[in-house]
Amino acid sequence: MIKAGIIGGAGYTGLELIRLLLMHPEVEISVVTSRRYKGKPISDVNPHLSPFIELEYEDVDAKEIADRSDIVFVAVPHGSAMDYVPGLMARGARVIDLSADYRLKKEDYERIYKRPHKDKDKEERRAVYGLTELHPEVADADLVANPGCYPTGAILAVTPLVKEGMVKQVIFDAKSGISGAGVEPSEISHFPNLAENIIPYQVTAHRHVAEMRMELDVKVSFTPHIIPAIRGILTTAHVFLNTEETKTKPLQGQGLQGRGAEPHSEEIEGIYKQFYEGKRFIRLKKGMPSLSSVRGTNFCDIGFEIEEKSNRIVVISAIDNLIKGGSGQAIQNMNVMFGFDEGEGLWFPGLVP
Amino acid sequence: MIKAGIIGGAGYTGLELIRLLLMHPEVEISVVTSRRYKGKPISDVNPHLSPFIELEYEDVDAKEIADRSDIVFVAVPHGSAMDYVPGLMARGARVIDLSADYRLKKEDYERIYKRPHKDKDKEERRAVYGLTELHPEVADADLVANPGCYPTGAILAVTPLVKEGMVKQVIFDAKSGISGAGVEPSEISHFPNLAENIIPYQVTAHRHVAEMRMELDVKVSFTPHIIPAIRGILTTAHVFLNTEETKTKPLQGQGLQGRGAEPHSEEIEGIYKQFYEGKRFIRLKKGMPSLSSVRGTNFCDIGFEIEEKSNRIVVISAIDNLIKGGSGQAIQNMNVMFGFDEGEGLWFPGLVP
Amino acid sequence: MIKAGIIGGAGYTGLELIRLLLMHPEVEISVVTSRRYKGKPISDVNPHLSPFIELEYEDVDAKEIADRSDIVFVAVPHGSAMDYVPGLMARGARVIDLSADYRLKKEDYERIYKRPHKDKDKEERRAVYGLTELHPEVADADLVANPGCYPTGAILAVTPLVKEGMVKQVIFDAKSGISGAGVEPSEISHFPNLAENIIPYQVTAHRHVAEMRMELDVKVSFTPHIIPAIRGILTTAHVFLNTEETKTKPLQGQGLQGRGAEPHSEEIEGIYKQFYEGKRFIRLKKGMPSLSSVRGTNFCDIGFEIEEKSNRIVVISAIDNLIKGGSGQAIQNMNVMFGFDEGEGLWFPGLVP
Amino acid sequence: MIKAGIIGGAGYTGLELIRLLLMHPEVEISVVTSRRYKGKPISDVNPHLSPFIELEYEDVDAKEIADRSDIVFVAVPHGSAMDYVPGLMARGARVIDLSADYRLKKEDYERIYKRPHKDKDKEERRAVYGLTELHPEVADADLVANPGCYPTGAILAVTPLVKEGMVKQVIFDAKSGISGAGVEPSEISHFPNLAENIIPYQVTAHRHVAEMRMELDVKVSFTPHIIPAIRGILTTAHVFLNTEETKTKPLQGQGLQGRGAEPHSEEIEGIYKQFYEGKRFIRLKKGMPSLSSVRGTNFCDIGFEIEEKSNRIVVISAIDNLIKGGSGQAIQNMNVMFGFDEGEGLWFPGLVP
Repeated sequence: MIKAGIIGGAGYTGLELIRLLLMHPEVEISVVTSRRYKGKPISDVNPHLSPFIELEYEDVDAKEIADRSDIVFVAVPHGSAMDYVPGLMARGARVIDLSADYRLKKEDYERIYKRPHKDKDKEERRAVYGLTELHPEVADADLVANPGCYPTGAILAVTPLVKEGMVKQVIFDAKSGISGAGVEPSEISHFPNLAENIIPYQVTAHRHVAEMRMELDVKVSFTPHIIPAIRGILTTAHVFLNTEETKTKPLQGQGLQGRGAEPHSEEIEGIYKQFYEGKRFIRLKKGMPSLSSVRGTNFCDIGFEIEEKSNRIVVISAIDNLIKGGSGQAIQNMNVMFGFDEGEGLWFPGLVP
Repeated sequence: MIKAGIIGGAGYTGLELIRLLLMHPEVEISVVTSRRYKGKPISDVNPHLSPFIELEYEDVDAKEIADRSDIVFVAVPHGSAMDYVPGLMARGARVIDLSADYRLKKEDYERIYKRPHKDKDKEERRAVYGLTELHPEVADADLVANPGCYPTGAILAVTPLVKEGMVKQVIFDAKSGISGAGVEPSEISHFPNLAENIIPYQVTAHRHVAEMRMELDVKVSFTPHIIPAIRGILTTAHVFLNTEETKTKPLQGQGLQGRGAEPHSEEIEGIYKQFYEGKRFIRLKKGMPSLSSVRGTNFCDIGFEIEEKSNRIVVISAIDNLIKGGSGQAIQNMNVMFGFDEGEGLWFPGLVP
Repeated sequence: MIKAGIIGGAGYTGLELIRLLLMHPEVEISVVTSRRYKGKPISDVNPHLSPFIELEYEDVDAKEIADRSDIVFVAVPHGSAMDYVPGLMARGARVIDLSADYRLKKEDYERIYKRPHKDKDKEERRAVYGLTELHPEVADADLVANPGCYPTGAILAVTPLVKEGMVKQVIFDAKSGISGAGVEPSEISHFPNLAENIIPYQVTAHRHVAEMRMELDVKVSFTPHIIPAIRGILTTAHVFLNTEETKTKPLQGQGLQGRGAEPHSEEIEGIYKQFYEGKRFIRLKKGMPSLSSVRGTNFCDIGFEIEEKSNRIVVISAIDNLIKGGSGQAIQNMNVMFGFDEGEGLWFPGLVP
Repeated sequence: MIKAGIIGGAGYTGLELIRLLLMHPEVEISVVTSRRYKGKPISDVNPHLSPFIELEYEDVDAKEIADRSDIVFVAVPHGSAMDYVPGLMARGARVIDLSADYRLKKEDYERIYKRPHKDKDKEERRAVYGLTELHPEVADADLVANPGCYPTGAILAVTPLVKEGMVKQVIFDAKSGISGAGVEPSEISHFPNLAENIIPYQVTAHRHVAEMRMELDVKVSFTPHIIPAIRGILTTAHVFLNTEETKTKPLQGQGLQGRGAEPHSEEIEGIYKQFYEGKRFIRLKKGMPSLSSVRGTNFCDIGFEIEEKSNRIVVISAIDNLIKGGSGQAIQNMNVMFGFDEGEGLWFPGLVP
C-alpha cells in the first residue's frame, strides 16, 4: 500500500486520478490539493465521488505533500507544474507530472510553450517520457513526464511502422472529445456551439506536435478537431511509406523486404502484433476502432487499412483521452514504477453502450 | 465463487450483466446464450469485452444451463422468460428474471402484457419483486423478478413518503436514455430522429405503471419520454400530499404531525434519511440529482423540493437504467441471495465527465 | 416597408430577430445595438449572418433608436428593458419587449423579479401580453410584452380546456434546449455537463410560473428541465379535470356535458379545433408532438391523450424556444401590429432532419 | 413558374427537395413519387411539411412524371436512377439526377459501383457534373449529374490551388453527419452506437473518391468518418504543394512564383478570392469554418492555414450535406438551367444556434 498525493485535484485530470485511484487496491490517496476549493469535502464539490472519498481539498506546499506521499501526481496546468516538482523531489517523493513541463527538451519547451523553464535542474532530472508501452525505463524513474493526450494516440498508432523504417511521413488528423479542453466553461465547450458541430483548431501548429516529433523520427504533421462528444480521441494517421527507399535498401525483420510494392495486410499485421506483444492495453482490431469500445478504459485500440495502388496506409487509434490519454496512463506508469501489476486498478472493460 | 449463467447475452441487459460480473470477485460466468450469435466468441461480437471473456455464445436448453450454474440471469424479452424459468428451477438453479414475466400477479400480467402466462406454477413460485432496498426477502428467494427500469426510479423516489401515509397521488414524469429501448435499431433510436429532440410515448398507458401501482398504495400516473442520451432515467415525481387528512388524523413518526400545513424540508429530509438508513446505493442529495453522477453506477440519487403554498412536493430520482434499473440491481439481488456484501462488484463511482 | 430597430442584438434572441427579419419582405433593419460589440460588423461577430447584413453594432440611446425605427424590439435582460421603453415610446416608436419587464402587474413583477420597477408609467402603458393567438388586441398596442418561452408552450397547450371551464389543476413538466439559457457559457451549458444528461432546476419556483398563472385561471405548477439539445421546449401538461363539478354544473359548448365521466377524445379534439380555428401557427397532432417538427419554425404543435379511469389528460406542446418562444412570436406580433399577413417572414417548414 | 417532379420523395434527399422547393417562388411541385407511401398525404408521413404541401405520394411511371414536369429531380438510390432517366428525357423533361448513375464515365461507374449501366445511351447524354460553381455549362444541360456530398466539399476546397498548378497531392479527411446515410435506421445510425463516438469507414476505398479524382487532376486520397451530428460535412484537406517543381517552373498568375519557399497567406487568399469571385455560395473565412454556420444553408465555407517549414496547407471546407451537398445544389443547378437567379429559394442564413 503506497500513499499518493494529487496536486490539482479539481480539474478533469485530477478528478480522474481520484476516481481511478479509489479503486486501486495498492494505493491510498493521502492528499489532494485545490486552491479554489480548499477546505471543502471533495465529494461535495464532485458528487459522483460520494461516498467514496472523505478527504477535503487542501492547499499545502510541495514539502508537506511530499512528506505525506510516496508518489505525487502533478495535475496542474503547463507552467505551474515546474513550481512544484523541485520541492517534491527534494523531499524524496517520486513524481508523475501530467503537464507538459517535463516532456520536451528545455529549449523546445521554452520555444513552444513561450515561457522560460523555471526549474534550473530540469535537464538533470532526466524525466522519462511516460508512454508506458514504449518506455520501460519508467520503472526506475523518479520523475515521469506523462504524455499529452493527442501524442499518446498518435505515437502508439504508428510507432511499429516507424521503428521498422517503413515510414516517410505521417499526417495525424485527430478528433477529440471536449473534455480535453478542461473543466472550465468556454466558447468552444458551450453546448449550442459544439453540439451538431465539429471544430478544427490550431490545424497546423498545435503544441502537441512537438512530442510526436520527439518520439517519431519521421516527418510529422498534426491537425486536431473537437467533436461533440465528452471523451475520447480518434486519431486518423495517414501514413506514407518510403517505398522508393525500400527498393534499394531491403528491410530487416517483418518489413516490406524491398519489393517496392504495396505491403500486404498480413505483413503489417505481423509488425504490429510483434511490436505490441505483451502490451496488454494495446488492442489490435480486425476492423476500424471507434471511441465506444475504449470509453472509460485505459485501452488504445488500433486498426489499419492499406490503400490500393498507393504508398498510403491509414492507421486509426482510439483512446479515452482522460484515461489512456491522461490519468489512466499516469497510473499505469505508477504501477510500473512501484512494481505492481501493470493493469492494477485499470483492468476493466469499457462502458458500452 | 459461484457460477452464473446468462440467458440472452447479446442485448444491452445481458451485455451489462457480463461486463459487471466480469469484475465481480465471487462470480464466474459459466454460460451465456444467444441464438443469433451461437458459436461466436462473445468478445468478437462485443469488442469492448475483449480480452476479458473467452466464452462463446451458446444455444443450450434450460436444463443444461441450470446444471452449469448456481444462479441464472434471464435476460430475454417479456413472454420468453417464462419458457425458461420452470426448467431452470426444476433443476435447482436460483433465478433472477429481468423480464416482466414474474413481476405482476398473473391476472395483471395477462391483461397488461396481452398474452397468457404459460408457466402454470407462476403464482406458487412466489417470485420476490427485486427492488433490493424495499424487499429484504430477496435473501431467501429462489426466484427474483427484477424490477423494470422506470419502476425502480419511480418507486424509490416516493416510497418513504408513501409509507408515512402522506401521499394522496403521484404523477411520475420520466425521462429516459434510449438504451432502454434495446440494442436493435429502430425509428426512435435513429440518430437524426432522436438527436436534438425529446420524444414522449405511451404518455398515459405505459405498462410499467402496473409495477408502480403494485408497490405504491396511492393513485399513480406515469408519463415517459425518451431524451437524446444513451443511459439514465430521471424521474420527476410530482407528489400530492393528503394535507386535508392530516388535519384530523395526526401522522405517527417523522410525519407532518397533523398541522395541515406545508411540510418543512427538515421533516421530509428526516423521513428519507431514516427510511434509507443503511441503504448504500441510495444517495440523498441536497440539491437536485441529474444523470451525470449516476452514469455507470448502481446508485439511485434522490432530491426533493417543496412547493410553497401548495400540497405538492417535487421529488426527483436519477438512475442508470441499465445498472440500477436493470443488470446492476440484478447483481445486487444476487449478492443478497448468496450472502455476499451487497455492494460486491458494484461499489465504484460513476464515469464523470 | 417599415424600419425595425433591435436593442440587444448579440444575444440569441437578438440574433434570431436579425436572422428572421432579414427574410421579412416588409421590414428593413435600421439599427442594432450592442455595447460589447460596438463598431463591429454584425456579420463578423456572427458569421452565419454573412453576407446578409452590412450593419455594424451600435451603442446609441433610446431617442436615436426610436427616431430611426417604426418598431423597436427590446432584447436585453430583465431589468434593463425598462431603461429603454419610456424613451422609445416618448419618441413615438412602437415597442415589442422580449424581456419580462412589462409582462406582469407591477407588484407581481417586483416581488418575483426582486427589483423595483423603474418605469413610473408602467401600468399606464397597458402593455399587451403578446401571446398572439390569445390576444388579438396586440393589433392596436403600442407596447407588447412578448411572453416567456416556457409560458408560450404551457399556456397554448391548455387554454382551450381552461376556457371551457374543465380544468381544476395543471402540472407543467417542461423540457427545454439549452439555448434558452443564453449565449454566455456557463456551468450548465458546458458540454461535458449537459451531454448525456438532463438537468432539473427551479423545480417548484421558476419565475415563469407567474405568467402562466396570470393567463390561466386555475391552479398551476411548473417544473422545468434542461435537455441536451440546442433548441426547443416540450411541455408535458398533466391536466386534471374538475369532473366532480361537471356532475352538477353542466358545461356549455363542446365540453363534457355534465356526464361526470371521462371525456371522449373526439370532444377534446373538437374543443381544440374550434378554439384554434384560423390560428395558422397552431398545429393539432393526431399523435404526440416532438421537437423535430418545430425546429426552426414558429409553430406550436399540440397533441393529447386521455388517461383511462382518471380525470387526467396529458397535453403536450412543442415549440422552438427561440422562435415561437421568443423572436418569431415577436415578429408575429409585429405583423399583427402593422397589418401585415400574420405569417409574413415566418411561414416555412422546419429543418428536418 | 415551372413544374418540378421528384422521383423518390421519402428519403432525406427527396424531403429536402420538397422543403426547399416549397419556398421557391418560381417552382410548383407537380408530382412526388414513393412506392412505399403511395396514396398517403406527404404531410402525414412527414409532419414537418404540414400544412405546406397538399400532394399525396404517387407511384407513376417516368412518362407520366415527364409529362407533368418541366424539371425532374431523381432522388432514388444508385442503380435505380438509370431506370428513370431515359424515359424522362425521351418525353422532353430536363433532369437532375442526385444519384451516382450519371456522374462518372460508364467504365468507371461499372467498376466502382459494381453493376452494369443499363442506360445504353449513357455516354451520349453528356450529363454535366453539377458542381455549379465549377461547371457553368449546367445552364444548357438537359441532364445534370448532381455531385456526391463528400466530393462537393472536397472539390470546392482545393480546386483553386489545383487549377493554379500548385498541388501535388491531397488527403481529404472528411467528417460527416449521419443524415448522409439515409432515412433508414441502421447499426451505425443507432443512437447508442453513434452518440459519444466517431466512426471511420471505408477509410481508403470510399466510392466518392472517383468523383474527386475525375475533377481534380492530382493524386487524391479520401478517408471519411461519421460524427455524432445530424447534418454537415467538414472536409479537412491536407494539401501538399509541389514546391520542388515550382523552383524550376514559375507559376503564372497569383501563384507561388517559383520561389521554392512556403507560400504567403496573402497569396493563397488571393488565389481563392479570384477563383471564387462572384460565386455567392462560397464564403471564404478568415479563421476556420465549422458546421454551425452552414447548417440549413447552401453555403460552402472555406478557410485555410499554411504549415510553417512545410509544403502542406490545410484547407477546410464546411457544407450542409443535404443542401449544398445534395438537394440545395440540385436546386442551384435548376436555377442556372432555367435562368433564374442562382440564389432563388436558397438565399438565407443558417439556423444558428
